[in-house]
Amino acid sequence: MILEFMLILNQREIWSALSFEEALSAMEEAFLLFEAGDFHMPDRMHAHHGDNTLLLMPCFTNQYFGTKLVSVNPENPKRNLPAIYGSMILNDTTSGEALSLMNGAALTAFRTGAVGGIGIKYTTPVNANSVGIIGTGVQGFTQALFACKVRPIKELYVFDTQQKKANEFIAKLKMELPHLKLQSCSSNIELVNKSQIIITTTTSKKAVVPDDAELIKGKHFIGIGSYKPDMHEFPAQLYPLLDKLYVDTPFAKEETGDVATALKNGLISDSQVTPISKLIASKKTIAETTSLFKSVGMALFDLVMAQKIYARAMESKIGSEIEI
Amino acid sequence: MILEFMLILNQREIWSALSFEEALSAMEEAFLLFEAGDFHMPDRMHAHHGDNTLLLMPCFTNQYFGTKLVSVNPENPKRNLPAIYGSMILNDTTSGEALSLMNGAALTAFRTGAVGGIGIKYTTPVNANSVGIIGTGVQGFTQALFACKVRPIKELYVFDTQQKKANEFIAKLKMELPHLKLQSCSSNIELVNKSQIIITTTTSKKAVVPDDAELIKGKHFIGIGSYKPDMHEFPAQLYPLLDKLYVDTPFAKEETGDVATALKNGLISDSQVTPISKLIASKKTIAETTSLFKSVGMALFDLVMAQKIYARAMESKIGSEIEI
Repeated sequence: MILEFMLILNQREIWSALSFEEALSAMEEAFLLFEAGDFHMPDRMHAHHGDNTLLLMPCFTNQYFGTKLVSVNPENPKRNLPAIYGSMILNDTTSGEALSLMNGAALTAFRTGAVGGIGIKYTTPVNANSVGIIGTGVQGFTQALFACKVRPIKELYVFDTQQKKANEFIAKLKMELPHLKLQSCSSNIELVNKSQIIITTTTSKKAVVPDDAELIKGKHFIGIGSYKPDMHEFPAQLYPLLDKLYVDTPFAKEETGDVATALKNGLISDSQVTPISKLIASKKTIAETTSLFKSVGMALFDLVMAQKIYARAMESKIGSEIEI
Repeated sequence: MILEFMLILNQREIWSALSFEEALSAMEEAFLLFEAGDFHMPDRMHAHHGDNTLLLMPCFTNQYFGTKLVSVNPENPKRNLPAIYGSMILNDTTSGEALSLMNGAALTAFRTGAVGGIGIKYTTPVNANSVGIIGTGVQGFTQALFACKVRPIKELYVFDTQQKKANEFIAKLKMELPHLKLQSCSSNIELVNKSQIIITTTTSKKAVVPDDAELIKGKHFIGIGSYKPDMHEFPAQLYPLLDKLYVDTPFAKEETGDVATALKNGLISDSQVTPISKLIASKKTIAETTSLFKSVGMALFDLVMAQKIYARAMESKIGSEIEI
């Protein structure tokens, strides 16, 4: 019997392995791999069981492959449990050996925060110092943290339809960002008015940004929430203000209502929808007009982040190495 | 942050959690669930990367669901590594929370041994006391152990085209089964001649049992090796001697050459291919004629075995409970 070991990394360990800067670099590297085609990402696989869904997301690079297993159980919040649980298994590509098990929810939040940060880095003015967050869940929290790493944010505004959640969110954020002006807004209009960058992290089916061209003109939007064709966070009047609509993957055209519905309704043309990897590969940032970067995520992000976390954790002896 | 824990179970822990009798009961239970339709097993998913394959095998029962990830890297043996690595993630069906990570190769070997044992229990004479194993890998070893638990085996014969491997196999088996007569055979003819039950556990493309009706008549065959349509372990002359061909799952008709090729060549009819779950559900064993039980495995076996192992391991404090 050959002894085998796996490195188990929990939520805290995932967050502590890399600095924010390293996480952002990892996602830039993932975008460059995407642009170079230097990866293999089979279609996401779905298994349905009643109202619950199990998503299996494998991806391969030359050195590693990984599979993220995500379970979505919509009734969980009624029982005070997170709707989503996840596990990431990282393997060595050459041998197939399993190397690491990571908390998939933490990995998802961490890499989604970093992808949002990359969106901000390439599509917003370098001196932007105000950001507004609509939606106060886990993703909103990590987006806020990463936004403050890529821009000199001084004021952070929060809006949630449930005021109580917004207050709790601010209290939690205060511990991480003690020197920031943190303020809850009484409406999405107030939030957009006060913020240069607006990040949406809701599961809404209807726009959460006001449908008012005058208000939203010149603002920079980062869309994180909508990951299904029937989910929308942005209003019709936003699209005609855009030069291009930047996406994290071309799959966004099918996966999110924020792109699919706009395409269907002719609010934007197919040729305007542009993978942000093209900007990154050409080392360009965009001019300071109204902008939208829409992220839906992909297994390549999970894999590249997981391999960076794994390598660093092994180096720094983070996590539990367990015989398997 | 809600603390979450997973139970990590390694090779030794998987083998120690349940007794052989409990493992056999678990597989009987799996067959009864299969017969009752009380499970949900999506199609196996494949991802190919060069010569390597990643198989994702999810399955749901009311209380648990599980996903076995198996990587098959055919070049591994050249580097002295196992061709197959596996991980099993067990989740709670109601919440989706991940409960346990198990060594998938050990789980596979353990449940495959138990499924073979169930085959022997239902398709061979109760007083059979000799067994022959063709193929001396991990599966051959576990088949031998389980065979000795369901029948009063006194003599165990081994054949492998590589004599050295057969000798090593016997030396290893001697430690587990010290009171048995263990003997290496110089040919498959000698092995079949001396054994009432013959278990095949090779990856051969051509029959490993002699194509001789006189020799094989009245013998009881358990087929474990062939899991692809181009793999075969049984000869043409076996099929006309069979009343029925018992399989562990109806998928065997497509998945293994031992059933698919025989069907295609008209050596056996579709109506003769019978899930062994029907025997188990009706609490019958078959009459003492020539028999063949062919196993290809399915995710339901992994899931039911994993849930039994998990429950017992939690009870008996086996394994490592790690924050995730």
